[in-house]
Amino acid sequence: MNYKIDNLQYCKWSRDIFKINRQAGLDAVHVTVVYHEDYDEFLGELKKWELFFKENSDLIFLGKSFKDIEKAREENKTAIFFGFQNCSPIEDDINLVEKVHELGCRFMQLTYNNQSLLATGCYEKIDSGVTNFGREVIKEMNRVGIVIDMSHSAEKSTLDAINLSEKPVAITHANPAFWHAAKRNKSNDLLKELSDSGGMLGLSLYPHHLKDNSNCTLMSFCEMVAKTADIMNVKHIGIGSDLCLDQPDSIVEWMRNGTWTINKNYGEGSKNKPGFPKQPHWFKDARGFLNLDEGLKKIGFSGEEINDILGNNWFNFYKNI
Amino acid sequence: MNYKIDNLQYCKWSRDIFKINRQAGLDAVHVTVVYHEDYDEFLGELKKWELFFKENSDLIFLGKSFKDIEKAREENKTAIFFGFQNCSPIEDDINLVEKVHELGCRFMQLTYNNQSLLATGCYEKIDSGVTNFGREVIKEMNRVGIVIDMSHSAEKSTLDAINLSEKPVAITHANPAFWHAAKRNKSNDLLKELSDSGGMLGLSLYPHHLKDNSNCTLMSFCEMVAKTADIMNVKHIGIGSDLCLDQPDSIVEWMRNGTWTINKNYGEGSKNKPGFPKQPHWFKDARGFLNLDEGLKKIGFSGEEINDILGNNWFNFYKNI
Repeated sequence: MNYKIDNLQYCKWSRDIFKINRQAGLDAVHVTVVYHEDYDEFLGELKKWELFFKENSDLIFLGKSFKDIEKAREENKTAIFFGFQNCSPIEDDINLVEKVHELGCRFMQLTYNNQSLLATGCYEKIDSGVTNFGREVIKEMNRVGIVIDMSHSAEKSTLDAINLSEKPVAITHANPAFWHAAKRNKSNDLLKELSDSGGMLGLSLYPHHLKDNSNCTLMSFCEMVAKTADIMNVKHIGIGSDLCLDQPDSIVEWMRNGTWTINKNYGEGSKNKPGFPKQPHWFKDARGFLNLDEGLKKIGFSGEEINDILGNNWFNFYKNI
Repeated sequence: MNYKIDNLQYCKWSRDIFKINRQAGLDAVHVTVVYHEDYDEFLGELKKWELFFKENSDLIFLGKSFKDIEKAREENKTAIFFGFQNCSPIEDDINLVEKVHELGCRFMQLTYNNQSLLATGCYEKIDSGVTNFGREVIKEMNRVGIVIDMSHSAEKSTLDAINLSEKPVAITHANPAFWHAAKRNKSNDLLKELSDSGGMLGLSLYPHHLKDNSNCTLMSFCEMVAKTADIMNVKHIGIGSDLCLDQPDSIVEWMRNGTWTINKNYGEGSKNKPGFPKQPHWFKDARGFLNLDEGLKKIGFSGEEINDILGNNWFNFYKNI
């Protein structure tokens, strides 16, 4: 059986988008539920999701384990797996790790761009690695079954997490820095360590992570995938598109600024380009998976490898955790 | 006019303790209101303090500026200044800095022992200094008038704070490491930088910070003060006793563990000595200020210097901020 999985989306959710994901054949999507929201605010977001599930029960349901991906395939639906892009919902309380897991959380970034209580983000000047609290939280995430996601973390923190975690970690949405030297993209050394430890990389389609940004070509992207497969075992490469469909620019402002600064921070953007960038024409939404399939074929991947990259690798990762 | 100020106490507050502080002649005390409590929990602590002020209005009142120290002296009362030993009450929201100031907060540690969102604590393995959020918060604390307290912070973080802050910073309760090499005590280099930048050191009477702990002698303490005055300008030395009178051992457990670890952490204590240590006999409570007066005289300080150390230096620090 071949599964199709997009392991990171943060769209302004609507029936239209759930339909598009079905048209793309996605059996599972890891969705970002919160960024900087604390535990109570996370509960508020859950209520919105309860309504989405109720009103779109013909298209989606809440996924809790790999079996829900199998179920989604059988029922022609998309299993939705919850994740956090920051550790804000567990606040400073290790007991909340188990609680957010009970409420459906299956992925949690130890940091967004800045320092968190757990580790250092990729926008800090100095990376001190995983903190005292971070070490305790990693053990607890391992125990309850939440995947450690280091997409927005700094390098030493990521290496620490790989070494400290008893289970493979994920970088759900980022690209290799050799292709495009964004702060968020990852070094070859780190990608190799990730792969060797059984971890997964979800390649991102977010223009700030792409060579030539919105003008990135499909073949440039697929060439990058091929080169990445020279560094990492191809079994550890997947897709985490980072699609932010229909989100207003106020959302990317919130993602970058939270409530930590009075002066505006533009993150990967700039004062002149503060908003969401335009998606490349070959990946306007998840239906771009069909273009990826063709591009990866042209670049020389086998059918099995393509199926692995477009979903089976993530499926196996879910299965092993 | 000579003032007497203890710039750190965290007692289990009662009318008895407010009386003892009056017997000691204290015109002002900086009290710890919270450790790991968030904003809402801080509001809960404020309610307790409102009751203390109401029921003990003949002994104490809330201090907001140096003028309240003058007023306290005139009225034979003790002005109580609020402080936080961690930045938990501002959560991840820079807008809360102004709010906690409005509610009386005048001192805030950027960290307790662990990494915070602002800086690194003295119990972390690696010290990355002041974070992105920390830089913003320091500006805001400077603007509204909250003193940056680095008592429990790691060295680079403290040096960063001294350099970033436009106003002098304080180490309200710690001792020099040359005398007793506790993690919480400070290097000569750091003390010199602190003094040169106009900052204050409050010498601690907490046994874990004292040479020979509970058995520390008054003269050993006073010799340490004299040596510290060779490193720092004597005008930048004060007292921050760190008295924790009448607190049950469950409180020191909370201070050390908060909610960040499942396994118990003993901090400066140990499994065999998990509780609060016994105060030295010459500083059982704030009336020990009278013994300090005598000891400092014996060690050779002038009357003016002694008055400076026991309160006037802190008074001038409050006046300049």
